[in-house]
Amino acid sequence: MLLLRRCRSLTRFGPLSTQRLQVAPAVASCAGRLWSSSSSSEDQRSYQRAHGPSWRHGLAGLLAGTGAVLAYGLHHHKAEQEDTVRVQAIEKTSAFPIFSQEEVTSHRSLEDGVWVTYKGGVYDITEFVAMHPGGDKILLAAGGALEPFWALYAVHNQEHVLKMLSEYKVGELSAEDLKKQKTIQTSDPYSSDPERHPVLHINNLKPFNAEPPPEILSDSFITPSAFFFKRNHLPVPPVDPASYQLMVEGLPGGVLTLSLEELKTRFPKHTVTATLQCAGNRRSEMNKVKQVKGLNWGIAAISNATWSGARLRDVLLAAGYGPDVAQRALHVQFEGLDKDVTGTTYGASIPLNKAVSEEGDVLLAYEMNGADLPADHGYPVRVVVPGTVGARNVKWLGKIIVSADESSSHWQQNDYKGFSPGTDWDTVDFKSAPAIQELPIQSAITTPADGAVVDRSLEDVTVKGYAWSGGGREVVRVDVSLDGGKTWQVARLRSSETGQAPEPSPPPGRAWAWKLWEVTAPIPPEAQELEIVCKAVDNSYNMQPDTVAPIWNLRGVLSNAWHRVTVKIREDESEE
Amino acid sequence: MLLLRRCRSLTRFGPLSTQRLQVAPAVASCAGRLWSSSSSSEDQRSYQRAHGPSWRHGLAGLLAGTGAVLAYGLHHHKAEQEDTVRVQAIEKTSAFPIFSQEEVTSHRSLEDGVWVTYKGGVYDITEFVAMHPGGDKILLAAGGALEPFWALYAVHNQEHVLKMLSEYKVGELSAEDLKKQKTIQTSDPYSSDPERHPVLHINNLKPFNAEPPPEILSDSFITPSAFFFKRNHLPVPPVDPASYQLMVEGLPGGVLTLSLEELKTRFPKHTVTATLQCAGNRRSEMNKVKQVKGLNWGIAAISNATWSGARLRDVLLAAGYGPDVAQRALHVQFEGLDKDVTGTTYGASIPLNKAVSEEGDVLLAYEMNGADLPADHGYPVRVVVPGTVGARNVKWLGKIIVSADESSSHWQQNDYKGFSPGTDWDTVDFKSAPAIQELPIQSAITTPADGAVVDRSLEDVTVKGYAWSGGGREVVRVDVSLDGGKTWQVARLRSSETGQAPEPSPPPGRAWAWKLWEVTAPIPPEAQELEIVCKAVDNSYNMQPDTVAPIWNLRGVLSNAWHRVTVKIREDESEE
Repeated sequence: MLLLRRCRSLTRFGPLSTQRLQVAPAVASCAGRLWSSSSSSEDQRSYQRAHGPSWRHGLAGLLAGTGAVLAYGLHHHKAEQEDTVRVQAIEKTSAFPIFSQEEVTSHRSLEDGVWVTYKGGVYDITEFVAMHPGGDKILLAAGGALEPFWALYAVHNQEHVLKMLSEYKVGELSAEDLKKQKTIQTSDPYSSDPERHPVLHINNLKPFNAEPPPEILSDSFITPSAFFFKRNHLPVPPVDPASYQLMVEGLPGGVLTLSLEELKTRFPKHTVTATLQCAGNRRSEMNKVKQVKGLNWGIAAISNATWSGARLRDVLLAAGYGPDVAQRALHVQFEGLDKDVTGTTYGASIPLNKAVSEEGDVLLAYEMNGADLPADHGYPVRVVVPGTVGARNVKWLGKIIVSADESSSHWQQNDYKGFSPGTDWDTVDFKSAPAIQELPIQSAITTPADGAVVDRSLEDVTVKGYAWSGGGREVVRVDVSLDGGKTWQVARLRSSETGQAPEPSPPPGRAWAWKLWEVTAPIPPEAQELEIVCKAVDNSYNMQPDTVAPIWNLRGVLSNAWHRVTVKIREDESEE
Repeated sequence: MLLLRRCRSLTRFGPLSTQRLQVAPAVASCAGRLWSSSSSSEDQRSYQRAHGPSWRHGLAGLLAGTGAVLAYGLHHHKAEQEDTVRVQAIEKTSAFPIFSQEEVTSHRSLEDGVWVTYKGGVYDITEFVAMHPGGDKILLAAGGALEPFWALYAVHNQEHVLKMLSEYKVGELSAEDLKKQKTIQTSDPYSSDPERHPVLHINNLKPFNAEPPPEILSDSFITPSAFFFKRNHLPVPPVDPASYQLMVEGLPGGVLTLSLEELKTRFPKHTVTATLQCAGNRRSEMNKVKQVKGLNWGIAAISNATWSGARLRDVLLAAGYGPDVAQRALHVQFEGLDKDVTGTTYGASIPLNKAVSEEGDVLLAYEMNGADLPADHGYPVRVVVPGTVGARNVKWLGKIIVSADESSSHWQQNDYKGFSPGTDWDTVDFKSAPAIQELPIQSAITTPADGAVVDRSLEDVTVKGYAWSGGGREVVRVDVSLDGGKTWQVARLRSSETGQAPEPSPPPGRAWAWKLWEVTAPIPPEAQELEIVCKAVDNSYNMQPDTVAPIWNLRGVLSNAWHRVTVKIREDESEE
């Protein structure tokens, strides 16, 4: 008998508010650049010396728009730097002065000080800017209210965050301005988010991030849309299909604008079965090695669907793409219609050669599993980039830009990249690593669940799971071990719904869909428990690494070590 | 001080002649099919029952043309099969009957018996056919002399092989026919092989297989041709450039024939820097886990060169390739001019989309490192398939065939494939695995050598190596550990000769050349020895597996686990 594992929503911070973690110099340096666009690197260093060290309190936040949970606090200092430290003491009084909104608004830079308001309090957070895990995004709130931002990134609404904020209080907002502010502040930006299926395990509610129970995944080759993992970076934008317009820029013909109807009728409808996987799938296993920053995904931030739409290639050709463009352009950028309070939209890009290749199968999809795209999956139009990390499959697509450059968005430049296990937030240089595009070989055991109990009387144990590789590389084999990796057997692969004929073998380099797999094996006579392990191989003979620690990285992405579950053997049925 | 590791030539069999290993049913079944092309699978099973079990002696051989060392012997039987066993007893007399060549020649099938001659003796090897590790190739010698074959596959020339052969002696060849045979038998087919550089470590002399000392590899970004690893499957064919003709078949325009001059003048000359790696590189590490079949390559069956020639794409287009061809064809086959005594040439194929892609960079190369191809590397023309296993880079190219099918050659169908560590020669089904094309991420430490001694007084240790990935995936990071993988540092990558500007960054998916890397790190104060480990990451974020055993496979290919060397720290300089 197999007991289902229940995943828990893990957005809360736990012990981090009491931890003293280190700030990332990259963040400080970024803030330094914003502070003065002409500042030299020496300016930045002196800024860091002056401001970096003085923080006394841990604080936790959600990386702007990524849903990435970050934590930081006191910057521990090397002894040799301490004599250069200028500690700023903030006087605190019980009776705070009253400030007008105008006065608050005049503090919106590192030079003039960074002030914000929250529920009528005025806070000087100048010193905190360099520590903000969302980086420079915090400056967008400078001179104004925090509420619209915190409504967007709900992780801020926690007691310890408020406690830390209180340390920076310098005054009260005038009653008159407070009243004005309250009428301006918008309602919950997530209020138009759709209903979701209750079976989903919610990793974060706002923005919505959730995965299905693993055992559901291996039930069907095509994941029903309701169960398909959801990974939103921002509120779901309500889009009117009648007025929807997709813009295509950066091509010789000027800007091409397409209505939904034109996208559906001017271009052939192309259907692709493709698996999407979040870069953070299986992040929870990295968290067991050492805390990483990000949503604590289990093994089900991956799903498989059938997508239909216009081929991006066809649209680009219609918009004037030709060989001459390939001489100057290298990337195709996408902008979503989902935006934060400042109007910044979600964005990402893919290499031009993937976008225009006949074999790339990149879609501007308007259907998922034979129906209109659901709201959570990008209605009315999303990009589907088969073989490529979920983050580039931009939803609620508003704009396509053919460019010499990658997307400048946070999610392309300073997130969704892999680093060495030896790299920490003090040493990370996001420019040193390529943006994740194709994902490496992956597999996991969907059933039995870790900690499940199997009755000896059943004699056999059946192990099921999924396997997939990025870049269109076909999974050619899955090895399964019941003894922690000492001995292996080859699983049976399935590339269709049970009982149906297998999908036709994909052309080389275009194996976009996962394979489900299954092994039934006798329970070894002496075993009291089984350490079940799986590892997959793709047709470039890439293999999964054995263990998690050597691929650990500070953002907890690319977690594709062998998947392991331990199952207990129950000898005595009468115990039931 | 670093002591060089000396690789040894490891073609000898060692203890295998006394071992009793199992025969592969795949071989037996193959022989069964040859025996009667109309035989049912039941026929084959009864053949195996009748013939398989009766072998009493181990025998070792070289897999025809692959240089793969195979061993086999008594087929241990499951108890339930034993009652079906018919043991054939061969009468042996001291005075053998005399047979004519005509009589010997009449025994050239499993139905009529398989006779061969060797140095005047006549042998009935019918029962041995199913055991031959080279598979059906042994039947090519049926009715004739073994000498021409053994000259080609020199591993047969060992005492224990002769001893085993003697068990099957049934007669003597008539003196007259023996005389005739001797005059027919050709001289050493390897006599026209070129001179080689003495620094190479020879893994097999005939056919020639050799690798440079590892520390030479990391000395130069471009491997000098003399040091470039050599992997021949057959004798080097002498080719007259004036009469050389390349044939291109399977395209609408009929057969296109090109002289060397035409190949050089009719098509633009294209230059690519590409690393080639043998599928068996680092096989010796798998041998330490459990004996595999194949040449015992160290870490240097990989090298990097600049190749120039006509693009295969251009030649195929000139020969009539068009989109219509892509509807019916999937593969491009290559035939070498190197052949065995039966006239069978080396052969391989690659997917058509790789061959015709503008980004595939597949060359019909006539230059290596700026000079004519050396004889060992395919003079006058070879295929260079960047990103693809060495075995598909066919040398001494004679024929190109565009086809719906893969090459039917032994090396495409029954070799150069990967299997689960749980698969052995009893269970292997070569049809179940794809032919290796793109290779997985790879890296190795070229210096210090395993077992080297480093003086503590040097304070630092410098570690160097190479890293490469197949399919044009660029190496983006190499992690190096001095403590067996507990902690890691990031190596400095190099993509040019020392002191020269780096090669320009390759377009996405076209990183064909390796990167050399280097780390200099302090010797840890307490360490008595260092377990140095490297692992590389490509831009699809594929990682190397941690350990060898879980990727072990019976042919010892695709050996790409973390590379490890142990170095001793010498504390007292006066010991020198």
